[in-house]
Amino acid sequence: MTCEDYERRMERAGRAAADAGLAGLIVTPGPDLTWLCGYRPTAVTERLTALVIEPGRRARLLVPVLEQPDAQRSAGAGALEVSGWADGADPYAAVAKWVAPEGRYGLSDSTWAMHLLGFQRSLPGSAYAALSEGLPMLRAVKDAHEVARLAAAGAAADATYEEIVRLPFGGRRECDVAADLARLLREHGHSQVDFTIVGSGPNGANPHHEAGERVIEDGDMVVLDFGGLKDGYGSDTTRTVHVGQPDAEERKVHDIVREAQQAAFEAVRPGVACQDIDRVARKVIKAAGYGEYFIHRTGHGIGVTTHEPPYLVEGEHLTLVPGMCFSIEPGIYLPGRFGVRIEDIVTCTESGGRRLNETGREMAVVR
Amino acid sequence: MTCEDYERRMERAGRAAADAGLAGLIVTPGPDLTWLCGYRPTAVTERLTALVIEPGRRARLLVPVLEQPDAQRSAGAGALEVSGWADGADPYAAVAKWVAPEGRYGLSDSTWAMHLLGFQRSLPGSAYAALSEGLPMLRAVKDAHEVARLAAAGAAADATYEEIVRLPFGGRRECDVAADLARLLREHGHSQVDFTIVGSGPNGANPHHEAGERVIEDGDMVVLDFGGLKDGYGSDTTRTVHVGQPDAEERKVHDIVREAQQAAFEAVRPGVACQDIDRVARKVIKAAGYGEYFIHRTGHGIGVTTHEPPYLVEGEHLTLVPGMCFSIEPGIYLPGRFGVRIEDIVTCTESGGRRLNETGREMAVVR
Repeated sequence: MTCEDYERRMERAGRAAADAGLAGLIVTPGPDLTWLCGYRPTAVTERLTALVIEPGRRARLLVPVLEQPDAQRSAGAGALEVSGWADGADPYAAVAKWVAPEGRYGLSDSTWAMHLLGFQRSLPGSAYAALSEGLPMLRAVKDAHEVARLAAAGAAADATYEEIVRLPFGGRRECDVAADLARLLREHGHSQVDFTIVGSGPNGANPHHEAGERVIEDGDMVVLDFGGLKDGYGSDTTRTVHVGQPDAEERKVHDIVREAQQAAFEAVRPGVACQDIDRVARKVIKAAGYGEYFIHRTGHGIGVTTHEPPYLVEGEHLTLVPGMCFSIEPGIYLPGRFGVRIEDIVTCTESGGRRLNETGREMAVVR
Repeated sequence: MTCEDYERRMERAGRAAADAGLAGLIVTPGPDLTWLCGYRPTAVTERLTALVIEPGRRARLLVPVLEQPDAQRSAGAGALEVSGWADGADPYAAVAKWVAPEGRYGLSDSTWAMHLLGFQRSLPGSAYAALSEGLPMLRAVKDAHEVARLAAAGAAADATYEEIVRLPFGGRRECDVAADLARLLREHGHSQVDFTIVGSGPNGANPHHEAGERVIEDGDMVVLDFGGLKDGYGSDTTRTVHVGQPDAEERKVHDIVREAQQAAFEAVRPGVACQDIDRVARKVIKAAGYGEYFIHRTGHGIGVTTHEPPYLVEGEHLTLVPGMCFSIEPGIYLPGRFGVRIEDIVTCTESGGRRLNETGREMAVVR
């Protein structure tokens, strides 16, 4: 990404803000800031850093004066007016001088509340919308370069899965298998590992169980959900494996989840509402009698973060557009017994969905 | 920390909120949540988790339903009413049912702006204050147990410094020395390394320079500022060393910073305003003719985070209380040439300051 690339991205963001009825964007450190201007401070702290983008104006970046040298060296700095503020000064008043006093601004989701309260105090007539609600499309449609990065991250996660199922499970602790997942993700090019869920037996029925001391036993179902960042873009895939031969109900539940995942995938095409993908998956699981055990949304967008718009959830009317990338990950969780989840990253193309994870979705039997 | 310990801590927080004119506290994942109730979700995400504390009432915790099993296993769960919300539901409406519609609540600083906007939408009559402003004393006064943890973290950082100055500097890259600092902090018991600043030569004039590819040369000043978490509490210390013999101006600047740091330390006693500690340090540096090169506040509080109230900065009228723990870290930064900073963590006692870092503050000469 050159400085000109960032400049064009910020110009497009300014126009998109205007189209969405916003006076502009205020963006603090995090994925939006890095994506828009290439600047990533070494830490997110109580000292305000804020990028202000307004349509038709040069973008401005306010940083703590002691971080100004770093900001001025960032890839997009040439497209920005960078100003510093010193400890003891009021950075909110500085931003207030830049923006429309009665304007409605899109604000990055993870901006600290203390900063939003600072803006509201300095600009009592202003209004704010979280970017994921006020401008969900900002980063939702990926260009070909971004889809290629996500595909490469997906391929690395797939290679990790292919290797992990050849290692022994029975007799090892969940955290040992999780350590192997992390190691393999790094070996396959991930710079950051964000989650390595190993949910064995009853732990699999807790969708966000990470990995603990439980020793995996013969006869366990094991949910493996792992991912992180490779070259700045996310991976996130889930497969549910079995130690030794599964019984009839385990097979049945796995088949239902697989069918739901396939049906949701086949429903992907431009113009379909996000909530309809969720409904397709939910319908399969409900018809099989397990509706009350599918306790989360069907998916989430992915890009420079692993959770971002579009969200595949009831009530989300946003429609799919070619270039959107998101997870499809239905599951069934039987408390105290086991859980099954199958997850691929999928990108919407003109002709339908394209999976960025391609490992087998049948239930693998491991040792 | 037992469940009863967390219960007492939450009760005290509720009373402190009332004393500060707040209807209560709303706390999302981060250091405040872990400190108040012992719960630390595996990730901070767009799904709302919120602890609501009101004086005289049992504390309530709202979590995504798929994280409920983890929340119910946390150390303070026995003192909480835990409720789950499912994807597609409105978590802000759920919190709105718990709180006073016209109440003013203290909100954790790092709560995501999207969540604050959700509260403001569901509770249009409510008002919010960032905890570091509305209730800066919440975690600022440490009990003996906490001071002991901070002292142990400080001792581990000191041991790291004693070892790093025996290693070679000249001819190695800053990032190599930084890697050694990280390794040593871990060897001395740190579970997390948050920063390992190695600012050599002109890089030392950038206070937040991390560590880069620059090869350290004979004749360089090198700022070493490092820390992280040990047993949940932070370390943060800075020493400025010299590769080979310093020249007269380098000695002079180092002496001034050392004198400023000593003067600020000696000014610590109960009842002194935070800004006065800053003024004492700044006066020494200004009198020596380097005032414009001391470009940051004198210090920040430390506890379960490495930056928290009290802040030693002009305009901060909060007064020191026994048990407060904070950095004292004046510096002089000569652009394009070199920087000097000397930093100790100090705790305020009835009789004055007590340093939690005790390595020599004279300029060490390294190889």
